[in-house]
Order: sequence, then C-alpha cells, then structure tokens
Amino acid sequence: MKELKREFEPYSGLILDLDGVIWVGERPIAEALEAVKKLRTLGKKMLFVTNNSTRSRRDYEKRLRDLGLEVDINEIMNSGYATALLLKERYGGGRTYVVGEKGLVEELEGQGLQVISREECWDNGADFVVVGMDRGFNYWKIATAMRAIRQGALFIATNADKTFPSEKGLLPGAGTMVAAISTASGKKPDIIVGKPNAHIFEIALKKMNLRREEVLVIGDRIDTDIEGAYKAGIKSLLILTGVTSREEVEKSEIKPNFILNSMKELFL
Amino acid sequence: MKELKREFEPYSGLILDLDGVIWVGERPIAEALEAVKKLRTLGKKMLFVTNNSTRSRRDYEKRLRDLGLEVDINEIMNSGYATALLLKERYGGGRTYVVGEKGLVEELEGQGLQVISREECWDNGADFVVVGMDRGFNYWKIATAMRAIRQGALFIATNADKTFPSEKGLLPGAGTMVAAISTASGKKPDIIVGKPNAHIFEIALKKMNLRREEVLVIGDRIDTDIEGAYKAGIKSLLILTGVTSREEVEKSEIKPNFILNSMKELFL
Repeated sequence: MKELKREFEPYSGLILDLDGVIWVGERPIAEALEAVKKLRTLGKKMLFVTNNSTRSRRDYEKRLRDLGLEVDINEIMNSGYATALLLKERYGGGRTYVVGEKGLVEELEGQGLQVISREECWDNGADFVVVGMDRGFNYWKIATAMRAIRQGALFIATNADKTFPSEKGLLPGAGTMVAAISTASGKKPDIIVGKPNAHIFEIALKKMNLRREEVLVIGDRIDTDIEGAYKAGIKSLLILTGVTSREEVEKSEIKPNFILNSMKELFL
Repeated sequence: MKELKREFEPYSGLILDLDGVIWVGERPIAEALEAVKKLRTLGKKMLFVTNNSTRSRRDYEKRLRDLGLEVDINEIMNSGYATALLLKERYGGGRTYVVGEKGLVEELEGQGLQVISREECWDNGADFVVVGMDRGFNYWKIATAMRAIRQGALFIATNADKTFPSEKGLLPGAGTMVAAISTASGKKPDIIVGKPNAHIFEIALKKMNLRREEVLVIGDRIDTDIEGAYKAGIKSLLILTGVTSREEVEKSEIKPNFILNSMKELFL
C-alpha cells in the first residue's frame, strides 16, 4: 500500500458500504481497515452508507472506533438517518408511526420527527408510516400501519432487502415487513430510501457536499450498492470480499466501473 | 317461502358461504336462517364452507346452533379443516409447522398431522409449513417458516385473503401472512386451499359425496365464492346480502349463474 492507483485519484469522496466491505458479519476485514486509514491520510472524504436501520449512527461510530478507525458520526449514514433527513427536508416534520427498531426511532427523533405510539396511530392516524427491519414485528403493527396508510399516511420504507445473512443463517429483512404491509394496505411504498434506490446516495452527496462526478461508491453487492450507484449516476467499485462473485458480475446486466479483490488493491 | 323455485330444484346439494350469507360480522341474517331451515325440510344436503381458519368447525357448529339451526359438525368446512383433509389424503401425514391460530391447529391435529413447535421446526425443519390468519403473527414465526421452506418444506396457505372486515375495521388477512413468508422464503405457496381456488370445493364435493352437477355454491363474493365455484366447474348463486353489489357483478368478467337479493328469493 504505497500510493493510490491513478484511476482512483480523481475521486475526492468515497461512499463505503459496511457489511461485506469493512466487515463480514462479526469479522472485520483487516485489509479494509488499513486501506481506510491510508485513504484518510490522503485527505479523502468518506461516508459509510448502510441499508441497516436497526442500529443508530452512534452504534456504528462506536463499532468503527472499536476497530481502530477515527470516524465521526457525520461520516455515517444508515437508511434510518437517510429517511429522517429526507422526511425533514421534504415535509418539515410530521406525526410518524414507526415499524422498526430502536436505532430507527432514535434517528427519526434526532431530526425532529414526532414518533407516535401504536395506540395513538390507531386512534388518530399518522402523516408517515416508516417501515424498517423489526425483530418486534407483529400482527397489530401490520394492522395499525395498514389502517394509517389506507387513511392517507405516506408509506416510507427504509429499504427493501428481502432477507439478510446473520450468524443464525438467513433472516427476514425490511422487505419482508414491507411486503406484509403492502399486501394489507393495498399500496406499494411511496418512497423506498435505501439502496438500490438512488435516494440514499442523493442524500449522501448532499451530506458530503460533493458533486456526483467527485464521488466513488464502494460496495460488495451488485444488486444494491452498484445498482444504486448506477441509478444515482455515481461511479462504482465492486469489492469481492462480500456477497457478489466475479462470475455473478459477468452475468449481471449492471456492471461496476471497477472491480477489485480487496480494498488493498486500491493502492500500488 | 312456499316452495323452491323450479330453477333451484335440480341441486340436491348446497355449498353455503357463512359471512355475508348467513351473517354479516356479528349480525345474523334472519331471512337466511329461515331459508336454511326450509331447505333442510326439503331434504337438501348442505355444507357451510368458509375461508376463515381461526375458528374450528366445533366453534362454527356452536354458533350456528345458537342461531337455532340444527347442524352437524360434518356440515361445516373451514379452510383449516380442508387443508387438514388435503394433507392427510395426499401425503398421509407429516411434521407440520403452523403459522395460525388455535382453530387451525385443532383441525390439523384432528386429521392426525403432527404439529411441531417453533423451536423444533427451527432446529429440524418440517414437512409442511401451513400458513393461515394469525393474530399472534410475529418476526420469529416468519424466520422459522422461511427457514423450513428454504430447506424444502411444502408451503401451504389455508387461503390468501389479503384483508377481512371486522368490527374494528379492515384487518390483515391470511394473505398478508402469506406475502411476508413468500417474500422471506423467495417462494410462492405450493398450494392455496381456500376460495377462489378450486381445492376447497373439490374437497367439499368429496365430503358431500355428490357430483359437481348436483351442487350449487351460494356466496356473497364474486372474487372468492363465485370465482372458486367457476374454477371447480360448479354452478353458483350470488346473494347480494354481503360484499358484492349488482353493479360489481356487471363489471366483473366472472358471472354467477344466478343472482338473488336475499336467500328468501330461493322460494316462490
């Protein structure tokens, strides 16, 4: 890791995925941590962007610091925070019913959204129904969300990942919760914030205060990171340390601009 | 109500829907009760067929008796019982994980299926995952069902009604549970037993020991009762005391063979 390869020099900002790039599940990727430190010394702006909404940015800040990376909370964007910024900016605020975990509630409240209880939503409806991954998902949450949406609440999904890998094996992701509420309410989400939708990257660009040509998206999934970058008109780099293999890239219609085996290969 | 109109004389068996035909929610339809008593005196075979799987046949027997109808448990078929008969007949039996309520478990066990716990299914998989309406639906039930289905369990839905009307307003139906589990498992149900699928009517014919030409389906919903009867090749009568209006029939591609305002009009 001496100096940055010439093809990566033009990008002053990097949008980095976490799972599959910085760590795989519980296991950190040593080469990636080293590369991030090196990129930092080169003065690159970095933003870690993840579809996971269950943990707050503060949780990620702590985890990255525990791995020895000097990161600031403003260098982290999860789909919950992106959702909160989008709602705040577009609508100013509003009464929000959340189907999701503590990290999502924390981010929404952090941007001044008024998170209401299930009882309050059942009785008086909501402006927004925000749906993310929720291990406390149950029948009455679906019933309450469908009722509010049928009464006119905006239906926002943090992301639509159908499943996600865990130490217990594949588990239902936010997309499963979204499918249940879509079926019951007879309506697809008005907005899906997370990758592969462009929203989260648009919000990321604004946060970084950079133009899209100045930024490179680094991720491990062709169907979320790379497709999302493509939709947002941002160049992308696929790292083969996570979900997508080189064979899958060859079969895919969407191609990354760059492919590397490891973050180490960013450097000569 | 003197005698049966000539056009209804040829049918020695009647398959009757419950909600919308015999009662609407909690309210019994007096004319329908009278008509059923009269049909009984004429020696018609009757089978009450409902997509609802949360209550057992015993529960329905009691409710109908409380309304003054002399019914036998063998004159009642809910989607849970139909599912149990189908699994018993086609496969003999098997280890069954149930996402559903007490009434469904009761019917499955009644036909000798081995209903297993969530923990047992998580650890060792299942032969069948049976999904019905479940007010105790939650994240870990989805996770367990998806895991078993991905490992090869047959995925059976009692029915696919997305919602159902209740005194509390519209609530999520079995179809909402099915959508969540389909999304997480990446697989549509192998079998959907309830209306508008023909399965439940085929099972009903066998139970009544009648040929399809001898039977008339009486229901209030064009999209379940009438469509299901059509698929099963059974003649149908739409009663306008429930969900479907005459205008909706006119717009619909599927038409009932007969339409009446009330069960009273079966008679001269």
